[in-house]
Amino acid sequence: MTTVLITSGPTRQYIDPIRYLTNASSGRMGAALAAAALAEGFDVLVVSGPVEVAYPRGATVHSVLTTEDMLAKALELLPLCDGVIGVAAACDYRPITVASHKLSKEEMLRAGEKEASFCLKLIETPDVMATLATHRRSERTQWLVGFALETNDHRAHALQKLQRKCCDLIVLNDSRAINSHETEVEIIADQGETVGTFSGTKRQVASGIMKLITQRLVNSEKPTLIEEESI
Amino acid sequence: MTTVLITSGPTRQYIDPIRYLTNASSGRMGAALAAAALAEGFDVLVVSGPVEVAYPRGATVHSVLTTEDMLAKALELLPLCDGVIGVAAACDYRPITVASHKLSKEEMLRAGEKEASFCLKLIETPDVMATLATHRRSERTQWLVGFALETNDHRAHALQKLQRKCCDLIVLNDSRAINSHETEVEIIADQGETVGTFSGTKRQVASGIMKLITQRLVNSEKPTLIEEESI
Repeated sequence: MTTVLITSGPTRQYIDPIRYLTNASSGRMGAALAAAALAEGFDVLVVSGPVEVAYPRGATVHSVLTTEDMLAKALELLPLCDGVIGVAAACDYRPITVASHKLSKEEMLRAGEKEASFCLKLIETPDVMATLATHRRSERTQWLVGFALETNDHRAHALQKLQRKCCDLIVLNDSRAINSHETEVEIIADQGETVGTFSGTKRQVASGIMKLITQRLVNSEKPTLIEEESI
Repeated sequence: MTTVLITSGPTRQYIDPIRYLTNASSGRMGAALAAAALAEGFDVLVVSGPVEVAYPRGATVHSVLTTEDMLAKALELLPLCDGVIGVAAACDYRPITVASHKLSKEEMLRAGEKEASFCLKLIETPDVMATLATHRRSERTQWLVGFALETNDHRAHALQKLQRKCCDLIVLNDSRAINSHETEVEIIADQGETVGTFSGTKRQVASGIMKLITQRLVNSEKPTLIEEESI
């Protein structure tokens, strides 16, 4: 049985118990990919940040809050998996310190240099997919598919991510995909070649992506170019 | 006809088109207060940040994203209203600049002093309730009820907010109220006296708060102490 791990949704990086950094990822693409993977007959594990979306019943869902939590849970599940799809929009920066109580305006200003502004010191969080890449059994037995959400220089940024995250495929989409029901994606393989493009509802696009993953990575057939079908 | 304006939900303050600061306010208390106000026979206008909750059909809902949007819409509606209930958890800080494209890791680091961290400069957003207070026709004809969500020194912070925001009443709750179905509140009047305490589902608590507002502010009866009932 093929087991697929899907990271999904946003993460949160808290400043204090109330305020946090995040993004509008809804988990819809993750839920659609989970449904498509189940339809292919795969076992599906989901590690999800806080979302309102309902994941399909057949998937085992692990809820997390921060990027560090998401990475820890994904590392724990990695040995059970044949492949990972990283569609989560995990925060890549976090405040250096998290206050134990809600900071008052006076406390926030005290931390600042000027009266009206203050400096929130942020540091990088670990890169979930890049870390999973270094912990997999081998590239041959565990595949990785990443997502790149870009607002400019789309292809160049996606290729950088493909390499930094050591993914077999990267799915490129843009900010219109966030919290939307429809999306449009281009799938790029490790030599930079486009191996698929899909557009439509997230359900339709997820189905196309999963068929391509099944063909190229699960069944390890000879790579073929799948054109956008009328999905 | 009495018209009540309710600000509800969180706001978002963007760093770039993807990343933002926010909090986990669900809008549930705002929706419950809207339902309770409709049940009292009031006209209800809601200015809400992005939430999943459904407001009651009888309410006119205006959707906003940032604290500045929320204030602008509330100021526009203020002349139509007899009173304002500010239950929104509006972000009180925003990044000084909002990038037009998703910042890459390289760009974020370039803005920083050290290689691994960077300083996100934040400034205060306008205080929605305090600004509405200075724009009302008169204290006698337009009342204001604020909410204070505190994690420490609850009462002292709530009293500071009551005065800074020039509210007639302030509803004090704690962080357990966020994104929860139940809550527990203490209502404090302008001399610092407790005039009501309620606990239960947000619907029950909203009903108690609205009856107290009706009695003390809408009908302008002589202030009385309303004890917590078995609501």
